[in-house]
Amino acid sequence: MATGRTHRPATRSRGIPEATVARLPLYLRALTALSERSVPTVSSEELATAAGVNSAKLRKDFSYLGSYGTRGVGYDVEYLVYQISRELGLTQDWPVVIVGIGNLGAALANYGGFASRGFRVAALIDADPAMAGKPVAGLPVRHTDELEAIITDNGVSIGVIATPAGAAQQVCDRLVEAGVTSILNFAPTVLSVPEGVDVRKVDLSIELQILAFHEQRKAGEDAAQTAATPPRVPRTTGGGRKGPDGDVPAVMPA
Amino acid sequence: MATGRTHRPATRSRGIPEATVARLPLYLRALTALSERSVPTVSSEELATAAGVNSAKLRKDFSYLGSYGTRGVGYDVEYLVYQISRELGLTQDWPVVIVGIGNLGAALANYGGFASRGFRVAALIDADPAMAGKPVAGLPVRHTDELEAIITDNGVSIGVIATPAGAAQQVCDRLVEAGVTSILNFAPTVLSVPEGVDVRKVDLSIELQILAFHEQRKAGEDAAQTAATPPRVPRTTGGGRKGPDGDVPAVMPA
Repeated sequence: MATGRTHRPATRSRGIPEATVARLPLYLRALTALSERSVPTVSSEELATAAGVNSAKLRKDFSYLGSYGTRGVGYDVEYLVYQISRELGLTQDWPVVIVGIGNLGAALANYGGFASRGFRVAALIDADPAMAGKPVAGLPVRHTDELEAIITDNGVSIGVIATPAGAAQQVCDRLVEAGVTSILNFAPTVLSVPEGVDVRKVDLSIELQILAFHEQRKAGEDAAQTAATPPRVPRTTGGGRKGPDGDVPAVMPA
Repeated sequence: MATGRTHRPATRSRGIPEATVARLPLYLRALTALSERSVPTVSSEELATAAGVNSAKLRKDFSYLGSYGTRGVGYDVEYLVYQISRELGLTQDWPVVIVGIGNLGAALANYGGFASRGFRVAALIDADPAMAGKPVAGLPVRHTDELEAIITDNGVSIGVIATPAGAAQQVCDRLVEAGVTSILNFAPTVLSVPEGVDVRKVDLSIELQILAFHEQRKAGEDAAQTAATPPRVPRTTGGGRKGPDGDVPAVMPA
């Protein structure tokens, strides 16, 4: 562990490309699955396939962690889980609040993928007085009036917004004012936040729109004899999820 | 319209970079907002800011659509909405089925962003017999036994999986067998599908993990005097959402 720790001074974190950072959770998901099956080591090819990245890219990504594996043996699964979790900051406890407890907020509250990654849902907050005190995912819903106190009392730095679009910016402003510096936004609107606050936006219809583009293209290819067209996989790969680059301004000054 | 249509033979669609395809929905979202405010034209700078892309990238993207705007006037909002919608295939009707009607499935069923983009929820499907017939978002939940018939009867090519991880692959196999060729997967698992089937995965914890990385880095920067560090925005930008490149294998042969 000590050895591993030396791989990550703050300067090293800053040196990791964002695209690599964004792939680390994919490696971690694959490694966790291997760990649960008590697989001790994994080759870069096996892990790359499981994570959905090409193996050269994976080896390059891991080189930023100072993790190179052992020729003929591969990577130590448990140690790599530790390295990536630590690199992502998942070895810490991250109290999170979810604001807006409709179906989506409730779905997020029940989402198992959070707790397993160090994200502890500290509180569920909703503006509807009728919801106050109602248990969701084992937590009593708190009223929006308590938002600032909840953020302060729980040292929350990450807020999840699952409100209707119309309420999102105001909720965002209150979260930021109360000290939240990272926001995951599910509301169908672009949020303005001060510099230094990170916002990541999830727009469910955007994924479908990209699928629709491919569906349309398939139809076109069928008409033009699919056999004559290049394989789809690489292109879809490229598509990955580059689109949300577009969410940039959400993290730019209002 | 006829002029616009000539901008998109199948070969043109294939020629559009995936990263551009993934940004089109972001432009469309911004343009729709302008359209709703009856704004007739928009400059590339204004639209770029609203969509969250830099204006040079926007102009390059639009050049693939054969849309160049008019110097001093900008882009015609309505026509651009049409061009992008057509390019993405949103001018067609896309019947979609949602499988797994828990909180998440219900949230998706109620998600306004689908219908406004040509995605019509044709059916909600759940394996729980107790759910059968129960109305969600105005639709009666159908039992999984009916899945194949529903896909066929409605000509569904896009399926949304919101089941628990354990059920996702089987549901995916049945959807694909029944003729679905695009899948939006919300289940926390990587799906194997035959070539020619596109899968896009939404993993909610991955977004949080990337935010956690930034939170951790901010803490490190605070300790190392934030003033001395380069502005965060560009890095976060780079991070965009490149990670899900990693979902590649989900669209590779099992």
